Parts: sequence; C-alpha cells; structure tokens
Amino acid sequence: MKYVYSFKDGNKDMRDLLGGKGANLAEMTNIGLPVPQGFTVTTDVCKEYIKSEGKLSSEILSQIDDELRNLENISGKKFGNYKKPLLVSVRSGSPISMPGMMDTILNLGLNDEIVEKYAVISENARFVFDSYRRLIQMYSDVVMNLPKSSFERKLDDYKQSHNIELDTELTIDNLKEIINIYKEEYKKLVGKEFPQSPYEQLLEAVKAVFRSWNNERAITYRKLNNISDSLGTAVNVQEMVYGNMGDDCGTGVAFTRNPATGEKKLFGEYLINAQGEDVVAGIRTPESIDKLKVSMPECFKEFERICNVLEKHYKDMQDMEFTIEHNKLFMLQTRNGKRTGQAAVKIAVDLVSEGMISKEEALLRVEPETLNQLLHPTFDKTLIKDKKEITKGLAASPGAATGKIYFDEKSLIKAHDTGEKDLILVRLETSPEDIEGMTIANGILTVRGGMTSHAAVVARGMGTCCVSGCSEVSINEKNKTMTVNDITLNEGDWISLDGSTGFVYGEKLETKDAEISGDFGTFMSWTDEFKKLDIRANADTPKNAIDALKLGAKGIGLCRTEHMFFSKERIFNFRKMICSETKEEREKALDNILPFQQSDFEKLFETMNGFPVTIRYLDPPLHEFLPKTESEIEALATSLNITYDKLKARIDSLKEFNPMMGHRGCRLDITYPEIAKMQTKAVIMAAISSIKKGIIVKPEIMIPLVGDINELKFVKDIVNQTANEILEQENIKLDYKVGTMIEIPRAVVIADKLAEEAEFFSFGTNDLTQLTYGFSRDDSPKFIKDYFTNNIFKTDPFKSVDEEGVGALVQVATNLGRKTRKDIELGVCGEHAGDPQSIEFFNKIGLDYVSCSPFRVPVARLAAARSAIKQCNSK
Amino acid sequence: MKYVYSFKDGNKDMRDLLGGKGANLAEMTNIGLPVPQGFTVTTDVCKEYIKSEGKLSSEILSQIDDELRNLENISGKKFGNYKKPLLVSVRSGSPISMPGMMDTILNLGLNDEIVEKYAVISENARFVFDSYRRLIQMYSDVVMNLPKSSFERKLDDYKQSHNIELDTELTIDNLKEIINIYKEEYKKLVGKEFPQSPYEQLLEAVKAVFRSWNNERAITYRKLNNISDSLGTAVNVQEMVYGNMGDDCGTGVAFTRNPATGEKKLFGEYLINAQGEDVVAGIRTPESIDKLKVSMPECFKEFERICNVLEKHYKDMQDMEFTIEHNKLFMLQTRNGKRTGQAAVKIAVDLVSEGMISKEEALLRVEPETLNQLLHPTFDKTLIKDKKEITKGLAASPGAATGKIYFDEKSLIKAHDTGEKDLILVRLETSPEDIEGMTIANGILTVRGGMTSHAAVVARGMGTCCVSGCSEVSINEKNKTMTVNDITLNEGDWISLDGSTGFVYGEKLETKDAEISGDFGTFMSWTDEFKKLDIRANADTPKNAIDALKLGAKGIGLCRTEHMFFSKERIFNFRKMICSETKEEREKALDNILPFQQSDFEKLFETMNGFPVTIRYLDPPLHEFLPKTESEIEALATSLNITYDKLKARIDSLKEFNPMMGHRGCRLDITYPEIAKMQTKAVIMAAISSIKKGIIVKPEIMIPLVGDINELKFVKDIVNQTANEILEQENIKLDYKVGTMIEIPRAVVIADKLAEEAEFFSFGTNDLTQLTYGFSRDDSPKFIKDYFTNNIFKTDPFKSVDEEGVGALVQVATNLGRKTRKDIELGVCGEHAGDPQSIEFFNKIGLDYVSCSPFRVPVARLAAARSAIKQCNSK
Repeated sequence: MKYVYSFKDGNKDMRDLLGGKGANLAEMTNIGLPVPQGFTVTTDVCKEYIKSEGKLSSEILSQIDDELRNLENISGKKFGNYKKPLLVSVRSGSPISMPGMMDTILNLGLNDEIVEKYAVISENARFVFDSYRRLIQMYSDVVMNLPKSSFERKLDDYKQSHNIELDTELTIDNLKEIINIYKEEYKKLVGKEFPQSPYEQLLEAVKAVFRSWNNERAITYRKLNNISDSLGTAVNVQEMVYGNMGDDCGTGVAFTRNPATGEKKLFGEYLINAQGEDVVAGIRTPESIDKLKVSMPECFKEFERICNVLEKHYKDMQDMEFTIEHNKLFMLQTRNGKRTGQAAVKIAVDLVSEGMISKEEALLRVEPETLNQLLHPTFDKTLIKDKKEITKGLAASPGAATGKIYFDEKSLIKAHDTGEKDLILVRLETSPEDIEGMTIANGILTVRGGMTSHAAVVARGMGTCCVSGCSEVSINEKNKTMTVNDITLNEGDWISLDGSTGFVYGEKLETKDAEISGDFGTFMSWTDEFKKLDIRANADTPKNAIDALKLGAKGIGLCRTEHMFFSKERIFNFRKMICSETKEEREKALDNILPFQQSDFEKLFETMNGFPVTIRYLDPPLHEFLPKTESEIEALATSLNITYDKLKARIDSLKEFNPMMGHRGCRLDITYPEIAKMQTKAVIMAAISSIKKGIIVKPEIMIPLVGDINELKFVKDIVNQTANEILEQENIKLDYKVGTMIEIPRAVVIADKLAEEAEFFSFGTNDLTQLTYGFSRDDSPKFIKDYFTNNIFKTDPFKSVDEEGVGALVQVATNLGRKTRKDIELGVCGEHAGDPQSIEFFNKIGLDYVSCSPFRVPVARLAAARSAIKQCNSK
Repeated sequence: MKYVYSFKDGNKDMRDLLGGKGANLAEMTNIGLPVPQGFTVTTDVCKEYIKSEGKLSSEILSQIDDELRNLENISGKKFGNYKKPLLVSVRSGSPISMPGMMDTILNLGLNDEIVEKYAVISENARFVFDSYRRLIQMYSDVVMNLPKSSFERKLDDYKQSHNIELDTELTIDNLKEIINIYKEEYKKLVGKEFPQSPYEQLLEAVKAVFRSWNNERAITYRKLNNISDSLGTAVNVQEMVYGNMGDDCGTGVAFTRNPATGEKKLFGEYLINAQGEDVVAGIRTPESIDKLKVSMPECFKEFERICNVLEKHYKDMQDMEFTIEHNKLFMLQTRNGKRTGQAAVKIAVDLVSEGMISKEEALLRVEPETLNQLLHPTFDKTLIKDKKEITKGLAASPGAATGKIYFDEKSLIKAHDTGEKDLILVRLETSPEDIEGMTIANGILTVRGGMTSHAAVVARGMGTCCVSGCSEVSINEKNKTMTVNDITLNEGDWISLDGSTGFVYGEKLETKDAEISGDFGTFMSWTDEFKKLDIRANADTPKNAIDALKLGAKGIGLCRTEHMFFSKERIFNFRKMICSETKEEREKALDNILPFQQSDFEKLFETMNGFPVTIRYLDPPLHEFLPKTESEIEALATSLNITYDKLKARIDSLKEFNPMMGHRGCRLDITYPEIAKMQTKAVIMAAISSIKKGIIVKPEIMIPLVGDINELKFVKDIVNQTANEILEQENIKLDYKVGTMIEIPRAVVIADKLAEEAEFFSFGTNDLTQLTYGFSRDDSPKFIKDYFTNNIFKTDPFKSVDEEGVGALVQVATNLGRKTRKDIELGVCGEHAGDPQSIEFFNKIGLDYVSCSPFRVPVARLAAARSAIKQCNSK
C-alpha cells in the first residue's frame, strides 16, 4: 500500500487521499508550474494514526524515508546536513478546505550544529539564526502544545530589557541569546532538550498535524460546515522557500477574480520581505497585488501567466499562495477560491458566457446556501447619502449590518443569550477562537487585517457582513470602548457597517431587503429551466406573499391562518370565541373575525393571481391564544365582561401536559365545527370577491393533524357543505381543492385511504419528525447536543430530513397516495422544504413541490435545479 | 325482499335479522314448544326506518298486514274485532341482548268500542277495562313519549280521592272513569284523541320500538358493552297471553342453572296473577321457582321438561320467560343465560364433563373479561366469622365490596369525581337511569327486587357485587339515611356487602384477593393446552411477581425499574443523583441506590426461578422524581445541603414543554451513561447471587424509547462492557438478553436494523399509540369524547389496539425484525397486552408473548387460548 506520494505522482482528482492542498500541488507540478517540491503523507495514514492511538507503522516510516531521499535528490540538498541543508515545511491539507483550522510548522531540519556551521557558510547568518528561533517557537507551540504566550513573553522581555522595539532590530547575538532562552524554557516545560535530530523533528511535526485534526477548533469548524469527522487530513512536506530573505523577496495570496464581487480582475495582496503566515494572520496590512506590477514587473508577468493557465485548467476562479525568493516566483498552493454568494453567481454567469462551462455546471458551482448572502439586507441608498461615516475600512464581506458593539466573544455571546439580536463584533483582529461570536454577530469590524485576513475569509464564508482593516479605530479592551476621530463608543452602543463599501456609521441604520436582478436574475432564471420541483412559499400575510412572488415562488404552499388572529382587534374576538360557553356565543365571536380573515384571503388571492394558495385551517391549541400573566388575564376578563375566576378557570381547563399532542389541528374542528365553517366561509367569500375582480383563484384548503380517515371526512363535509351553499347562492363555479397535511405517523400508514378523500397531501415534516422520533422540538435541544457528542446523530433531523426514518415514511405515503389517486398533488411545507439536502431527497422521490419561507425561495429553487441536474447526471 | 317473518319461518341462527328474541321464539316454535304465535319485523326494517328518518315503505306495510292476517288464522281471533279480539304485544329484540334498554307495549288491539262490547261478552269485564287502561298508559309513555308521572299522578289522585289503596280494589266503574281521565290527559298533551284504530296503534308501536334503538339508555348501554350502533333492533309482534287473569295464572323467569354460581339446579322466580313486567321491574318480591312445584305441579312438570329440551337443544344454560294463563304454560322467551364469571366457568366445566361440549367450545363460552369477576376480592373467612351482619338480602351478584354509601347516582358520581374510590350505591330499586352510578360503585344494595331484578341482572353483567331485596332496610331519600334494625347510617358512612352470601355489614371490612382453584383451576389449565402466546406479567415488586406467578404468568415481561426508586430512602439518593453537578457526584449517589435495586432484582429472580425477567431501564423524565411544592423543595434543599435557589434552578431547568417526548428513556443514558452502568451492575450482581443459590436466572435487559440504531448500540455497549467485567471477575457464565422497546414510530421503520443488535423486541403499545396518533394520553380524554359523539372513533385506541394504524406498525416491525433475526423474541408490554380484542390481533400476527398486569393474566390466558382456537377453526 502506498502511504506517501511524491508531488509528481499525484493529481487534482486525488483530494480524498492527498487532501486538497496536496492534490493541487501535484497537479501544478504536473502542468509544469514552479512549485517547491515535496511529498504528501496520505489521509489514510491520518486515519491509521488516530485508530492506533498515535502510532505510525514501520512501512509508513520507511516510505517517508524514501520520499525524503527522493526530495534530497530533486533539490540537491541534504536533510540534516550543514553544507546544503534541506529545510522543509510541514502543512496539513484535508480533502475539504478548513482554512487556518489546522497546524503548520516551518523551517524543519535545523539544529544547534547545523545552524552554527551553516550560518558560517551561508550569506545570511542572521536569517539562519532567526529561522532556528522561529522553528523552536513554532515547534514548541504546535508540536509540543506549550503555551504560546510563554515564548512570546520571553521575547518581549528580552526586547524590553535590551531596548529593542522591532524584531528586525535583533542582531545575531541577540538571536543566539534568545535561542538559548527558548531552549531553556523548552527544557523547563518539557523536561527534555529541544530535539536535535531533524528526522525526529519531522516525524513529530507530521504526527502533530494528524493530531490537529481533532483539536477543538477543527471539530467546531467541521460541525459548523457539516464536514465528516472521518475524512482525516493529509500532511504535505515541502522544501522551504523564503519570502523573508530581503526586499527581492515577498509572499502573497491572490484570486484570479474578485472573491467579493466576482469581477474578472486579479485580486490579492502581498508583503515584501515576509513569510506567508504574515499575510494570512493580518498582523501587517499588505499591499494590493496591483502594486507588484510596479515593484516586481517580471514576477508579476509570470504570475499573470500562471493565473491564466490555472483558470483554464481548473475552469474556475483560483485562490493561490505564492512566495518570491530572490525574484523567483514559487506557487505554494492553488484551489478553487471561496467567494461570496454575489461573486459565486457572477463568476458562474461569466464562465458560462466565456464558454468555459455549461449552465448545468454553473448551477452546480453555486451552493444554494450561499444565495442567502445575495438576499442579505442593504442600506437604503437614499437614506445613506445624508449619513456621514465615522470611518472607512476594507469592504471585506458584503451586505449591511447594524447592531450593538461588543469587544470580546464572551460578552457578545452573553448579550445574545439574554435576547439581544443585533450584535456587531469589534476586534483588533479575529482568530479561529472567535468562530462562535462571528457566527452570531450581524457584522464584524476589525482594526487590522486585509481582504484575506481571518476575519474577511471567515465572514465571506458565512455570508456575514465584514469591514476589516479599519486602521483609524483604536480599541481599549479594558474599558470596552472604541475611539475613532474623537468619537468614543462604549460596549452596547449602536453602529452600522456597509460590507460592500467599507463605510462605518456611528448609529443604528435601517436595512432593506435585496432583489433578484442582473446576473442574479439570469442565474435564477436558469434554475427554472432544469428544476422539476415547484417552489411555493409559506406566507401568512399579504406582505409575505409579495416578497415570495418577487423571489420566484409559484404559489403559497402554507398559509397559517392562526397568524391572522394575533393583531389586537382580532385576538379579542378570538379570545371571546375561546371563552364562549355555548355554540351560539362562539359563532357570534367567529362572525366578528370572519371579515378580517376574508379580507386577508382576498389580498393573498389577488397577489397570487393564477397561482395556488394553500390555506391551512386553525392548527395550534387554543391556550396559545390566551394571556399568561395575571394582569393580562384581569384585563381580558374585564373586557370580556366575565369574572377573573371564570376566565382563569377556563384558561386552566385548557392547559395541557403535552400540548404538541393535544387538542389542536382538526381536533379543534371536531369539537368546534363552527371554526371550520367560519374559515370556509372566509375562503369561499374571498374567492368569489376576487373572481369578480377578474383574478384567477386557486384555493387549496388544507386540514391539519389528520390521523384518521373519519377526521378528514368530518371536516371535509363541513367545508363542502358550507362552500356549496355559498357558491350556489352566488351562482359561481369555483374549483377548490381539499387536502390534508401528512404529519401524524398514522396518516402515513393510512395514506391510501386518505387519498380517497384528499386531493393533495402536504407533508408537515416538522411535526412528522417530532412524532416519528418522539422528540419534542421545544425540549430536544437540551439533550440532542449529547447525541452529537456521542456520535449518535450526524445531523439534526429538524434541519435536514431524516431520510432513513421520516423520509422513508414520506416515501411510503407518497406511494400509497398515488396508488389510490394517480394525480394527487404532493408537497412539503415543513422547514425541510428550504433545506438543500432535504430538497434533494424530495426531488428524488418525485414530489410536486416544496414550500418554504419567502427568503428561502431562491435557495430552494437552486437546490431543486441542482437536484434535478445531479439526478439526470447520475442516470 | 322479506321484511316480516312468521315465527315458523325463522330459526335460532337468524339473530342478526330477527334479533335474539325473535330467532329464539322461532326456534322454540319449530321444536314444538308452546309459544304464543306471532311474527318478527326484521332489523333491516329498523335500519331503513332510521335511514329514511321515520318512514316505512308500502312493501313493508303490506308484509306486516299479511303476517297479521296469518296470525289471525293461527289464533282464530281477529285484530280489531270485538267478538274474538286479537290482542298483541310489541317487543324489541336486537341481535345482541340489551335487557330493559328498549321498549315494550302490551295489549295492543283495544279501543273504546271493542272494550265496551268485548267486556260484555267476555267472562272478565274488569280485566278488559284494566287492560285498556294499561294500554293507554303504556302507549302514552312509550309511543308518544308523554311524561310517565302525569298518568301515574292521575291514577294516584283518583285512588286517593276515592279512598282506594290497591289497584286491585278498583271497580269496573272506577276503571272506566280512569280511562276517561287518561284519554282527556292524552288529548290535552298530544292535541289529538287516543288512536281508535288498532292498526294505527300497532304501526306506531312498531315505529316506537325502532326509535327506542336510539334512546339515550340504549346508546349508553351499547357504548358500555361495545355493541355496534349499526345492528338495529327487530320487533316481535306476538299474541298476548295473560298471567294476571286470576290465581290460576302467573308469570316468571327462570334459568336452567344457577346464573350466580353455575350450580346445576333450576333457578328462578315467579309471581301468581301478574304480568311479566312485574317480575323484571322488581316491584313485588316474587316466589322462588321451587314453590311452583307445590302451587302448580302440572305446570312445573311441563316446565321442567321444556327446560331439559332447551338445554339439550342449545347446549347451554337457558334464561327463559314464561306465562301461565289459566294453568296453561306458554314460553315467551329463551336465550343463553347471562351469568357471573364464576357460573360461566362452572357451567362450561360441567358441560364438558356432561359430554355436551368440547374443551374448545367451553373456552369459547366464557368471555375473558368475565374472569375478572372470579378475581374479585372476597372477605377473609376468619375475619368475617366474628362480624355480625346488620341485615341479609339476596346474594344477587358475587364478590365482596366495601365502601361509603350514597343514595342517588348524582351524589355518588360527585363523590367519585372528588376522588372517592370506595363507593356503594344504595337504592330502593335501580332502573336503567342508574347505569353510570352502578358502573362506578364497588357494590350495589337494593331494598326491593329479586335475583332477576334490574339491579341483579346488570350487576352480574358488570361483575359488580350486589345484594338485592334487603327488605328490612328503609331508606329516607330526603335525609339521605338508611335504617335497619334501629341502626341508622348516613350518606358517606361505610358498609360492606357480601354478594355471595347476601350479608350486609355496617362497617368497613378488608377484602382479600381471589385464587385460582377448583373448577376455575381446571378451566384455566385448559387455556394452556390451546394458547400459542405466552403470558407474562408486568411486575415491579416481589409482591407483584408472586401474584403474577399465582395467576399463571410465565415470566415478567416488564419490570419498570423506576418504581423501585420511590420509597423514602431511595428517592433521596435518586434526587441527589439528579441534582449532582459532576459525573463523580452522580456516580456516588447511584452507588447508594445500587444495593436496593440489586436486592429487588434478586427477589424477582428468585420468585421467577426459571422464567424470564424483562427489566426495563430507567424510563421517565427526571423531573418526575423531584418535588413540586415549595415546602417540599425547601426540605429537599436542606437535606441535600444546597440552597433553595440552586435546587429550584435545577428543577426549573428540567421542566419540559412536552415531557412525553422529552429527555427520557435511553436518552437519559446517553446524557448520563452512569445510570445504565449502575442498573447493569444491579442486574448482573443480582443474577450472580441468585445463581449461587441455585436459581435459574433469565434476565432480559430492555432499553426503552429507542428510535435510532446508535442509541441502542450506545446503551448496549455499556451493558455488555459492565456485565462482562463483572462476570469475568466472578468467573460466572450468564446468558442474558439485550433488547429494545418498540414504542417510537421510527423504531418500526428501522426494525430490521435494530434486530441486528436487539435479541428481543417488546412493543410498548401505549407510547406507540400516543406517537402514532399524536395523542397525548394525559390530554386526549378531554377531546376524545367528541370523537365518540361524532362517530369518528368506535373504540378507544388506548383500550384496544388500533389494528389499522398502530397494529399495522407492529406487523411491519415484526416482519422486519424476523427478516434480520429469525428467532427474535417478540412481545407486547403495553396495556393492550391485557385486552382480549388486542390479544386476538397479537395472536394473529404471531407474537411470542404478551405481558399484562398480574390481575389481567387469567383474562389474557383465556383470550390467548380463544384466539388460537378461533384461528384454528377459521382455517
């Protein structure tokens, strides 16, 4: 078995084995690009290492040894030799990119003896000693897990006591002394000398990378990004090249196109006389790649050529790392670049018009979830033009955000936990430790760091608005204040960020919703060419319906009628209905609600002209509509003109032990048929009134929580009787459908019978998941985390449909339903309807539509199109 | 289509069409017994009458007419003719007997003219007028639904004003005047004259009987007895014979064997010079049938002969009504007699030893539910012999009862609603209106009425203890007291009844449980010859287990381990465990519980020596174990040595919105693996200790609430690891099984996978029903009554398994489970396991066992045997 691959033995399709970085280093090697040579230890070794709890077999060791020899031959250098010492880097590289999540060690191959002797014969003795210092520091941190701060403090103490400000001012003697201090510290903390065997250094570094696969940051990142824990990481061992050997050296990162906007123009940054990590860490603010043209024109030309080769080769925008060592350009990495949703869409559309890819490929290029970013709010242009920014940074991740500022993750999470929704994280620079806070925040502001700093990369990945490099801002972490141009803001004060311009405003600004137009419009129109599933929206108000229509919904798949009862004048009558003692009283109260409900339905019909509108009858238990606090109860009693005690007794009588499984859904109609009657009146009268205005009306009346055929028959009879009465009276013909939710497991079992009465099924996968698992959605978050910790669940069944259980039931009901009624309409209206993974499943089993919240409609459209394309490709 | 059958055209197998009474009248006619002739209007007519909302087609009317002519020919009398007037009775008779639930009208065929003229030529003018008076009174009540009391009051007023005490003192003139008063009252209330057309009387009476099918009493009775509403009743029109024409007349009811004990001896009562209804109504206390031998020896001999013929013919104990008109015996009805459980068993066993029926037939003769009566408590003989009864009545329905006395149904129900459990209903006599109270009461005492009075018949049917005919007792309904032999008892005072001896005690007496022996033992031993299902018991304590074993359980199918935590010393440590903050604290608290649990298991193993013991691991949510009231919380906080606030916070943090679907079952073990570990230790250590005593131990460890294969694996790993460690240490071999409950719908879907890990499935049909329907068992009773009212449900799915839904899932899991593991052990441990109808289903789909509460074991054994026999017969 081959455990170790020389770069020339791999290619880009071997990501699973070599990791993304390794595969692409191999690919670049093989298309003749300048890559420092090396080899990759495979992900299989990582898996074995974890399984064997930290052992590497002799076969593996021997293959590493062979490849090291091979690298010595290629480079003409020797590992552990002081004359032409081969120095290598050890870097992680997993099949799916996890930027900054795992570890890197540089300058491996030095020891006391080599440094002493090599310094003498090399042209840059100071550089040799500094490299050794860096090695000890990095090794201590990454391999030995010693506290970073203790080495940093030693260095700071030394500089202070010697009155030195910058690292570059350190002399060779200084460095020698620091090396001794470091080695002493190492010995003190580890109990052993710093290893003098370069080979030992190398092996320990490789193992450290494997271990880093399971560090907390990496685990969190995988969880957040749904990456399997079982992939493992590869390790790349590569000859060192140095961007920090003088002013004819440098290092940088660049994208072939703009990753924020998608613009077709080289985009990136570099630092002269610096190592790669300096760019990514955001400690020094780098120069724009454009400047390279001026400072190193030959290198720039070569770089442009390579960019072109890479884009043509990979047929996608590339994200590259390079180093220039004494005017010679080396490519250290290339990969398909991460991008904002906006950029993803623009690049996909551009690549199609450039003839590089097909529309299908374009659709497959954009992850549905990233569209969310295009739907992020922006500031109203007319509003903004009168506002004066307090400062300007880099437009690192687009969108607009407004919120209260917090200076550390802990305070921000605390504020979030107490219910604050609009939060902005303000940091000098962010680090992987800030992940959770960055996930929660509306927006991120950093003082340091460029477009490719940690904050910028992560924020773009999350679709969170970010302004980085706000160098005018100074932060006082102790007092929790930020100051910019004489303005001081305290923790909890409002600011607003424009991630598309970089402007920062010192106040709360309203944001507005995005629209589908331009490239986005073109792209979305392609989804309609390929998808088989219709996309409807869940919309309870005319405003929802308008949004849904704009975003491409072809109908309403779920109108939750109870949401229409909550406004002030309506809730009163609804409560009156609940507190009625006789059917007559109830009917009177319902009569007062009827006009409101009817007018809402009218507006929905008019908005959805020609598209179906699925109206779900009253679903929640009645106690949800009643007040909870004593004073509210008192007030209601007064306005209902009954005693407090009587109202309290009614409220108490409605209390339930398990309301999720209580008196709700169609069960309410069986006890109070007059509710279904009123709702039918409202639907039918609204339809008639709309028809009279020339609107095409397609009402679909949906009975919730059906588990028995007689429940459905009972409510359907009320619907038909009430509707026919009105329609006959008005002498109007109206095609309306009556159908049922499938959300009770029993409904699945008897779906063939239900289909005799139901013209459509709408799968309520939220409740179906609750009942199929016996998981209360309100309670399970408390213990479901233990399910993730113990690897019992991989994904949350409330997020993506559980194909094995709930999905199997959906499939059963689909088959049974179609057996009885060939043309039965089948849809999903649970939250899974907006989840791409679930949509793929619903597409596969051949449902007719999914219905999600309006702002998920574009995501669902794209997911549906991709599912159809994938299904077609796999045939 | 034939709507009306002459008695000679029917037979006993036509119950569905002719009703039980009609079919048996036809059968008796055809085997040559003396039956007043007549005809039966079929149940089909009843269904048509109800469907058409009160119409009878001309075809039906013409067939009635034809059979009336036919009856005139047979009897030699003429309907509506004054010379030889044909008088008929109209009686209901449904396919399943509903004693006293529907209506009867007698003496139809009289009018003013016929009465006047017939009185002249008949030998008994007074009787003719009295018959007419009775007809008007009965017709007004039953056919016209006029208030009974208004006619009774008119009669009382008349008697009072004429100084007459007994009805028999009324002269012909008195009767004529009363007839006029009645007719006036009739006209006043109805607005029309009393109908003079005998044919109209007949038709209206027939319709009234059909209507009575849907009167409230009848509906309630059917609901209580699980009789379908769709059966309908037939109507029997029969020539009148009179037991009230003098002292050579009489009427009675009798059983061929004793319906209370099963003794093979004619048993019954009669009244001289009385109509049939007088016996049933319990207004006069009748003579024992033995006395008939003396008073009318010829009639008695004939009756004995007929009894013999009937028993041989029907091969079962008969319940008969007869009338003697001028020394001539007429049989008015025969049917298989209702009997107590004790009698049912004895008769079945006797019939087998008499060679009349087979063992299989004997088992099919006894409804499983009736065995409950044999398991009813009795008084301890040694205790009773020192007690002096306050009075003695008839031993109308066996068993012993003790409770507080109530004199009306309303007060009794009210007491029941406030939580009183031990109640005795004390009444002058009971009527069908008392049904609900009789259902609730432990026992019934009546002052009037014999062994066949309403109270006696109904109580025997229900298996409720009853002492009737306590003629020494006087009741003051106004003051709510009863007085007997100078002792006065008030509402709420305790008495005790012995339904097997008729003794009444004026105090609370302890009762003791029944045993299986004698005929009952023989009978139960037969069940084992035929049943295929094993019967286990749900038992949580050694006491339960001993009871279960006595009653024939072959193992424990469900030991709810949490029930072991509730005693005082244990609950403290359990609460301490719940309130622990670290795993170590929790383990310490669990260590304290371990010895208790282990010793309980030891006792169970020892009791069940050789039989399997299924141990379910902790199931309920933890909050169920914590105190609710402030003072309890304070006390616990003190003894746990933590602050009130801290404990309150912990309690609050455990609160759940839907605890049924919350953190319980195996979900607890995933959060707190140490619980499963402790429980495994207790099981294994108890097993080892029992094995060392020579006990054969078969533990089956059952993981509750599994919905995912990883849940089962996780807990099973803990079990196996913990068990193996102990067993290796002790060097003992122990075969234990690990299995799972199937109670989550998802478990059904993945049952094939679960069977890879589970050695047995136990269907928890309680929770499976809750989740399959989405019905919270705690909440659904509030609205499920509307489901019955609206005919959405026929039976309560928590009582009998819902074969279409839940049953189908059990079938699916059974198939999937066996597909993976051919010999997987399959059982049911929900409450359905003790329900005969459900057992029939579980037998049909071939499960291995059912496990019910100890006192249901005999019922389940019989139900299992009957199911197997029926299944065999139907092949």
